[in-house]
Amino acid sequence: MARNITPREKDYSQWYLDVIKAAEMADYAPVRGCMVIRPTGYAVWESIQSQLDERFKETGHVNAYFPLLIPNSFLEKEAKHVEGFSPECAVVTYAGGEELEEPLVVRPTSETVIGHMYSKWVQSWRDLPILINQWCNVVRWEKRPRLFLRTSEFLWQEGHTAHATREEAMEETLRMLEVYRSFMEEVLALPVIVGEKSEGERFPGAENTYTCEAMMTDKRALQAGTSHFLGQNFSRAFDIRFQNKEEELEYAWTTSWGASTRLIGAIVMTHSDNDGLVLPPNVAPVKVVVIPISPDQSRLQDKILPEAKNILERLKKALGRDQVILDTQFHMRPGDRFFYHLQRGIPLRLELGEAELASSRLRAVRRDTTEVINISLDAVDREVPKLLDDIQGNLLERARTFREQNTYQVNSFQEFKEALNEKGGFIKACFAGTPEDERAIKEATTATIRCFLLDDSTERTCFYTKKQGGRMAVFAKAY
Amino acid sequence: MARNITPREKDYSQWYLDVIKAAEMADYAPVRGCMVIRPTGYAVWESIQSQLDERFKETGHVNAYFPLLIPNSFLEKEAKHVEGFSPECAVVTYAGGEELEEPLVVRPTSETVIGHMYSKWVQSWRDLPILINQWCNVVRWEKRPRLFLRTSEFLWQEGHTAHATREEAMEETLRMLEVYRSFMEEVLALPVIVGEKSEGERFPGAENTYTCEAMMTDKRALQAGTSHFLGQNFSRAFDIRFQNKEEELEYAWTTSWGASTRLIGAIVMTHSDNDGLVLPPNVAPVKVVVIPISPDQSRLQDKILPEAKNILERLKKALGRDQVILDTQFHMRPGDRFFYHLQRGIPLRLELGEAELASSRLRAVRRDTTEVINISLDAVDREVPKLLDDIQGNLLERARTFREQNTYQVNSFQEFKEALNEKGGFIKACFAGTPEDERAIKEATTATIRCFLLDDSTERTCFYTKKQGGRMAVFAKAY
Repeated sequence: MARNITPREKDYSQWYLDVIKAAEMADYAPVRGCMVIRPTGYAVWESIQSQLDERFKETGHVNAYFPLLIPNSFLEKEAKHVEGFSPECAVVTYAGGEELEEPLVVRPTSETVIGHMYSKWVQSWRDLPILINQWCNVVRWEKRPRLFLRTSEFLWQEGHTAHATREEAMEETLRMLEVYRSFMEEVLALPVIVGEKSEGERFPGAENTYTCEAMMTDKRALQAGTSHFLGQNFSRAFDIRFQNKEEELEYAWTTSWGASTRLIGAIVMTHSDNDGLVLPPNVAPVKVVVIPISPDQSRLQDKILPEAKNILERLKKALGRDQVILDTQFHMRPGDRFFYHLQRGIPLRLELGEAELASSRLRAVRRDTTEVINISLDAVDREVPKLLDDIQGNLLERARTFREQNTYQVNSFQEFKEALNEKGGFIKACFAGTPEDERAIKEATTATIRCFLLDDSTERTCFYTKKQGGRMAVFAKAY
Repeated sequence: MARNITPREKDYSQWYLDVIKAAEMADYAPVRGCMVIRPTGYAVWESIQSQLDERFKETGHVNAYFPLLIPNSFLEKEAKHVEGFSPECAVVTYAGGEELEEPLVVRPTSETVIGHMYSKWVQSWRDLPILINQWCNVVRWEKRPRLFLRTSEFLWQEGHTAHATREEAMEETLRMLEVYRSFMEEVLALPVIVGEKSEGERFPGAENTYTCEAMMTDKRALQAGTSHFLGQNFSRAFDIRFQNKEEELEYAWTTSWGASTRLIGAIVMTHSDNDGLVLPPNVAPVKVVVIPISPDQSRLQDKILPEAKNILERLKKALGRDQVILDTQFHMRPGDRFFYHLQRGIPLRLELGEAELASSRLRAVRRDTTEVINISLDAVDREVPKLLDDIQGNLLERARTFREQNTYQVNSFQEFKEALNEKGGFIKACFAGTPEDERAIKEATTATIRCFLLDDSTERTCFYTKKQGGRMAVFAKAY
């Protein structure tokens, strides 16, 4: 157990911060609630960005950039939207040395300003669909900040699409939910439950909100990405109208969907351990570190380092140029060098010392299991990619098993409370209550509906109201 | 000449805006001075970003992210910095429903907040150098906005480095200047003059500012990227100190360097013509468009389209997956389809119609020269990359020749004024005057010193003061 990290069992919140600090992923900024994403953390974001962006482009989306500052009056055009976001807004009142006539809101999200632009760009059905995404920063003032999970400024992407029909817009909403789900599972090794939010948890202004919910290792839920079906709410507010094939004017149907730097927090809280960060290979900016070691400086320079460099080059070819690094921190003791990379979550460490060179083998140490595997030098290009696949698969499986072991199905409020208090985790229960019932459950237990499961047509009795005809919901305490 | 574009000779400013509008690159946003970068324009920015980022990483830099909002007091810690930037700042005074105790400035640049963080991260000489870059948005309130060239919000990258010695920091400053110069010439086909700014044109807080200056087709200069040697000014203001190898405390030496979405304006004003946008192949998001044509629908579907798809696939292999597109806008007339891509600046258009199919050839039309080349279908994978190289080389050469033809060397103020008024362009002249002389020249002519040439050791007489010992400067009217 690393001495610079509080054990997870002892204080989960402190453990989380310690892991981030030890890996040098982020720091709090001088402005309350804001963060600095340090190079180790930002490299993870770059890896998320490039892989998510590729999936957006494969599904026909293009990127654009809309302005940071939004006239306050824009927010007011959609009643629920302004109600939801106003309390969190940062507001610019002075600019260029003068007081502004109208205050400008630093974007908390961009439906309004994008709606305004779409109304100019859309005239005919030929202009639809518009499939645009933007990567940017947003500001939502945060009273209880927490690195990556809740910060007053964060980085994200927000997709905004406009369609000619309700069906097409709904299809897009669910397509992007699936893009998130598959990305989270395949790249981040984050098993997620997808479903629909309850009325009270919807995006302000949406008709439906769909979500990916993950379970952290403290058994709490984390909302990892959402996709919103906005109906015609924003089209009506911003007058996005088009002439259909029958030459009639219609309001467009819009969607929006987003995922943020919060995903980095989800990775930390799903895979890391008491030694520090653990990164799944598919999202790790660096997948392998090669560490040449010898107490004898001349042996190191003449024999071991050249062989390590040879391995480095072969692995760069097999895995990609930036995916493998060579550790040359020879002023540090071997144990400290191992520890350095271990705390930064590098999935696989390859040690090459005197014993290994003599036997033409490498000592490979897996970050996920600490297992040691001896690899013949000849087989490095074949064995290392296989090991990385194995690590990726193991992390996903481990997280899925953990979630399953901590998910309980209940039929009464009594069972609900027992499961939640004695075991924690996800509680599956059929719910047919009102938003008021939902609030009452939250007040009594602090648990909320994370989502209603999709494709669930079983008719059961509501655990809370005992009414018939409810839908299967997942409840949990959440971040 | 395109009817939707004002001729360049008639009204250069309007021509510039028309080219951007016709290509759908950008729009003004609802907030005065801000812009929306539309997908066509943003794709150019993505191309710039990825290629510049690669060059930053090759020179040892990593990316990070620092906060958008900066306490006002931070700016005040460096006297010249606050004097230079305060008048342009946008200021947040309310957040989370409350008035803030200290107003927060939306970053106009990040030396201050980064200096604050570096002071925490740097203790020993082992922590140096720090070589960090960030890609982000900045706000500088603009009274006379102009798409891409001067907008109240723009996108850029800002590198911030800290070093143990003056020499190392100066080396870094000049290394990044060279990274910009080579990128601009090799990728953007933008020939630039590199040099040092005069005292009056320096970055607020810098000891020296180095710049890349390009000539637009209206003969005015555009500052395309700058690299600043900050000396110990920001280290002293933010207390960035380290223990050197002799265990003494020293202030670090810092640099910063930036290039922005302004580069897109430079591309437009260097290469485009009266038909619209012209993009150099190395920065063009799409390099080639394949256009199948036939008046006969069944011939089109059975013969021509399959062959066009075949060519598309071969070119994707030769050039990269996203670099080639197929035009299937069959509801439009062929001329309109050509025009559509021409106005978006695609470097090469390949037409495949009945005549071409019969002779197993493609009709290739260069965007830069409008020249038509017949390419044998067999040779497409070989000939198209060669043609693209040729277009790239031609655009750079054309811009360089234009600059050279419009650069004049003068020895007196009389000659200076004549050259500037009768011919325009860059005026080279030896200058040994004071900042007051510089201001007087600007008032009389509106021209400014764009830079002093580097490596110029010739001792000559100042054209203005007639003093000895001046340096060779380039003057011009500038954007």
